[in-house]
Amino acid sequence: MSSETRQQPARLTRKGQATRSRIVAAAAQLMYERGVTEATLEDVRAAAGVSGSQIYHYFADKQALLLAVIEHQTEAVLELQAPLFDRLDSVRGLRAWRDAMVEFQRRLQCRGGCPIGSIGSEVAETNPEARLAVASGFLRWEGAIRAGLGAMHERGELEGDPDDLALAVLAALQGGLMLTQIQRAVRPLEVALDAALDHVASLVRVDPV
Amino acid sequence: MSSETRQQPARLTRKGQATRSRIVAAAAQLMYERGVTEATLEDVRAAAGVSGSQIYHYFADKQALLLAVIEHQTEAVLELQAPLFDRLDSVRGLRAWRDAMVEFQRRLQCRGGCPIGSIGSEVAETNPEARLAVASGFLRWEGAIRAGLGAMHERGELEGDPDDLALAVLAALQGGLMLTQIQRAVRPLEVALDAALDHVASLVRVDPV
Repeated sequence: MSSETRQQPARLTRKGQATRSRIVAAAAQLMYERGVTEATLEDVRAAAGVSGSQIYHYFADKQALLLAVIEHQTEAVLELQAPLFDRLDSVRGLRAWRDAMVEFQRRLQCRGGCPIGSIGSEVAETNPEARLAVASGFLRWEGAIRAGLGAMHERGELEGDPDDLALAVLAALQGGLMLTQIQRAVRPLEVALDAALDHVASLVRVDPV
Repeated sequence: MSSETRQQPARLTRKGQATRSRIVAAAAQLMYERGVTEATLEDVRAAAGVSGSQIYHYFADKQALLLAVIEHQTEAVLELQAPLFDRLDSVRGLRAWRDAMVEFQRRLQCRGGCPIGSIGSEVAETNPEARLAVASGFLRWEGAIRAGLGAMHERGELEGDPDDLALAVLAALQGGLMLTQIQRAVRPLEVALDAALDHVASLVRVDPV
């Protein structure tokens, strides 16, 4: 995120912070709806209700703004799940997380896919810096899942490698989200997560409920 | 695929077929490397070594070409795996398919992701016709996996629903491919498919080897 860091002043006033946040939120929404390439800085400017010079005050270019959006979406995705992450150290907690992920997609009418994954898929071959930022976001997500599985493992309840299982659960989530977006139906996400969690459950010797 | 059907003449000469195929192959490669939005018709024209009027002879617009690319990539993906599909009615055959998918990504240095999935992710929110074409491609892929699992189920070897398991395996593959593309490492794909196939294997009562 070097270009963002370069651009972002060391200290922003409270008002400056608010303006910057509004620009990032508007860009995130537009990139989510239309894709990174299709969302122009002019669209972002209009949606955020700021002037062009205000955008350039906070972001050197679209790349800097994209990196801020990836950070923003990572935070949003993790914050949304935060209340559920604490309970991922039991099969019951994992199932509750699965239900919440499915319900969230249902409310969105299966639109949009994963806010991080869809950016990642779009930029992976053309923008190494953005690809790495997405990879970093996924690592944090994987880490949150891993924490629950690791706790079960340390308590002697879970056989199998918690690192591998966390990555497998994240992959099932991502594949399920993408197919759910393409099919406009929650079934792919439900089935993908159920299979992954059934696999985890089959490796659990004792599950405290 | 209405616009393509409209545009494509009822009969093409052999030379016309070859020219059309060359255009589609060039477009598929460019869209794979750069994304759908970034690959312009002018880029395709240059890469295929044809004139602008030749492109418009075969395709009314970029949308028609995109639909032909989705069809082309679906065929390519299924053809690549065809020799392995016949053996998906055993755990050994499923593992061989997994190994081939991983090896293929290794040879590509984990670049590109899924040729269908990456288009799907890019167009899902902005192009319903293309989204449905991608959904149709995924259904064929899911069907090929389902055929093997269904055969096991009919022989009484596989417990569990072969429809759900086929979709879960495809989701694990897609999520694994995307994370492998983002991380430039085969481990996500390996781990995702291993978890999905371990789950299938746990439901197999007899596996003829």
